[in-house]
Amino acid sequence: MNTLYLPELREMIAADDEAELREFVNALMPARVAEFMEGLDPAEAWRVLRSADPERRVEVFGFFDAPKQAAIVQRLVDSGDADSVSGLVADLPADDRVDLLNDLDEPAVEELLPLLPQEDRRETLRLRGFPEGTAGSVMTTEVARLREHLTVTEALTEISKRAQEVETVYYNYVVDEENRLLGLVSARQLVTHYLRPDQPINELMQRDVVTVRAMDDQEAVAEKVADYDFLAIPVVDDDRRLLGIITHDDIIDVLRAEATEDALLAAGVAPLQAGYLRSHWFSLACSRGLWLGVLFVAALLTALALLSYEEGFDRVWWLVLFIPLVISSGGNSGSQSATLVIRGLTDGEVTLDDWWRVIRRELVMGLTLGAALATVGYASAWLLTRNPPSGEVSPTAFQIAAVPLTLLLVVVCGTLCGGALPLVFQRLGLDPALMSNPFVAGIIDIAGIVIYMTVAVAMIG
Amino acid sequence: MNTLYLPELREMIAADDEAELREFVNALMPARVAEFMEGLDPAEAWRVLRSADPERRVEVFGFFDAPKQAAIVQRLVDSGDADSVSGLVADLPADDRVDLLNDLDEPAVEELLPLLPQEDRRETLRLRGFPEGTAGSVMTTEVARLREHLTVTEALTEISKRAQEVETVYYNYVVDEENRLLGLVSARQLVTHYLRPDQPINELMQRDVVTVRAMDDQEAVAEKVADYDFLAIPVVDDDRRLLGIITHDDIIDVLRAEATEDALLAAGVAPLQAGYLRSHWFSLACSRGLWLGVLFVAALLTALALLSYEEGFDRVWWLVLFIPLVISSGGNSGSQSATLVIRGLTDGEVTLDDWWRVIRRELVMGLTLGAALATVGYASAWLLTRNPPSGEVSPTAFQIAAVPLTLLLVVVCGTLCGGALPLVFQRLGLDPALMSNPFVAGIIDIAGIVIYMTVAVAMIG
Repeated sequence: MNTLYLPELREMIAADDEAELREFVNALMPARVAEFMEGLDPAEAWRVLRSADPERRVEVFGFFDAPKQAAIVQRLVDSGDADSVSGLVADLPADDRVDLLNDLDEPAVEELLPLLPQEDRRETLRLRGFPEGTAGSVMTTEVARLREHLTVTEALTEISKRAQEVETVYYNYVVDEENRLLGLVSARQLVTHYLRPDQPINELMQRDVVTVRAMDDQEAVAEKVADYDFLAIPVVDDDRRLLGIITHDDIIDVLRAEATEDALLAAGVAPLQAGYLRSHWFSLACSRGLWLGVLFVAALLTALALLSYEEGFDRVWWLVLFIPLVISSGGNSGSQSATLVIRGLTDGEVTLDDWWRVIRRELVMGLTLGAALATVGYASAWLLTRNPPSGEVSPTAFQIAAVPLTLLLVVVCGTLCGGALPLVFQRLGLDPALMSNPFVAGIIDIAGIVIYMTVAVAMIG
Repeated sequence: MNTLYLPELREMIAADDEAELREFVNALMPARVAEFMEGLDPAEAWRVLRSADPERRVEVFGFFDAPKQAAIVQRLVDSGDADSVSGLVADLPADDRVDLLNDLDEPAVEELLPLLPQEDRRETLRLRGFPEGTAGSVMTTEVARLREHLTVTEALTEISKRAQEVETVYYNYVVDEENRLLGLVSARQLVTHYLRPDQPINELMQRDVVTVRAMDDQEAVAEKVADYDFLAIPVVDDDRRLLGIITHDDIIDVLRAEATEDALLAAGVAPLQAGYLRSHWFSLACSRGLWLGVLFVAALLTALALLSYEEGFDRVWWLVLFIPLVISSGGNSGSQSATLVIRGLTDGEVTLDDWWRVIRRELVMGLTLGAALATVGYASAWLLTRNPPSGEVSPTAFQIAAVPLTLLLVVVCGTLCGGALPLVFQRLGLDPALMSNPFVAGIIDIAGIVIYMTVAVAMIG
């Protein structure tokens, strides 16, 4: 947290020094102002924002993180001051307004909605209809629409007038009278043609515009924008009518959120609503406990498997030593494979059509890595069993080979399962990231014990 | 791979139909052209590119992935045709040119460099000096520089003339005669002031420009751009001289690459140079084998620990059943904690100053989750040991309580280690992502066995 200006800010607030506050909030870049205001409580933050021009206020507010935005607005509504904050809420870009309202409690939303201008209210209600995680839920509807008969000068004039209302002036969409998307004119094209002011924009507009649908998955949309290096991508309906756009900064937010979500899933944590420190401990415990419970049940099966082989452990004293070694080697190689394939699928490098290449590759990998571990494992197992406890004897070179043979088989089993399961999940239409590392490891744990005991029974009898 | 146009393309190439090829390569968006050309081999791809105008050629080429770009250029240089491809290489944005040269073999680079115009050659050599992963290595030097005395019209005219050479026209940097950064004028500002053409740009330029240094870590730069919603960020030297800029598309690439790298590290795979399917199997085996070997050595320590308790397993038949359950519960809860803290650090939500909050939170989490697992564990362990093998007796209710007590302690140990280790790594100046899940699990495995046996000895004797 940046606390550099905090004492001064608090002094100005205490002194109710309108002029100084105005100066502070207008002098720096909005992102910086927001940074310096991080330490203020909601009431103090609102006192500062009140001093800003409406336009500047909404910019600074936009740089606060979601919980802070919600806290400020919630507090004002709760203290009966919904009126004074409704202007700010109305000025927010439509997508941010929807996110904010989703973070307030229902009574506050119901108090605020009627205070919004009719058009903004309709917009908000419509956007709130798109489920979380879809293109519709992250798009904004404030987009510059141009008609195709305009010249470069006319287009620049039009954009210049509307610049404050729209989310970006860099991509401007050309639509017909029914709002159907005809093409795209970038600010780059307009500026490049600045010296040819009378050229009609339909001569320079790009007609082959890549679009997405409102119900498309936001992760797929982000990949598309990233692949094409776009600044924004338009969202259209079935009749190619322009609903809104998703801009590069929203795409970056989506990519970061998805990276966090995938990382948590990989470790067996259900997605969090807030961040790690911000989540309530009980909701965090639920996110973790859910998966931990599933994995615990899987681990109980290993106990059941071991129970049926209990006699073997009783008779062959050294078998028990290598249980963790066997299951962790299988689990680790399986996690590696699963993660590599999941990332390949996410980055678009691997598709379902590559299944045979993946399986072949994982088989080779399992044999190579398994053979390497088996070699070290053979030597280590031999050494570890040279000093048997009283009343026991050391295993023979042949008997102890059960350990490396098991390692080889378990690692191959791990790489094959780890490589195949994400593809199976993808094929079933599920998120392959659900095939989390502990889940793969849980499966391999059971397989590992069965392989270990089967090999041991075969080799030692 | 998009194979829609592949047959037609191959036909045109076979017929050497220059006019048709020109038409194909110029009619669609460059990204689409590149997509349709995915299936072509390097020689065929070059045949198509040759038909395009130089400007269009470099755009389409820019949308090929790195290995394909390298294959095309390498093939031409190898076949003695370095001359004809040097123009394309010179036309590439400086950052992409450097990436391309890094993917060629050294003789090809030495053949190409002298063929570049002097200025491009110098640029390339300088950029190649910045280590991989720094801001300098991803920046481009083709940036629009403006002088502060220009008016809006003059600035627009200047940008309009130079638009083809620069990477972006959306952010234009104002510099003094010694190339020191004075401010930023966005195309948005220029377009907004289009109706006031005589206003000097130094009245509208933003002076408080956020910059980065060439040696800054690219991940930190990406976070900065993401936090501020920038389209680009300038890279400056110690005297605030403008070296180049990093644009939003490069930032998106950095974020995606870092997400993949972190995911792989979390599963114990050293970063790959190419993707999963593109990497040579041997380099993939090395990336995986390295960590797998380290973890194997850690797992060997569990065998050593078990060896010293071997007598206990011999005397108490049911202890062996719960080894995998104990170590996997500790490992899973540790991975969850480590991943949550690592993601918090990456996203900037958690800082080193939060160490006490993290420890407290993980302690509560460990006690809660551990108690839940212990309850289920107690019941399961009781049930599993009701039918003892011949000659053995079932444990008493007190004896079997060793299992839930161990589970509680192991889970608390897992959450505390998992939460603390990434902070320790960060404190030591290491990447906390190195604290991979299998590494945490490996530590907990050993701790788990020691705890299990200590509790068992204390309770059963």
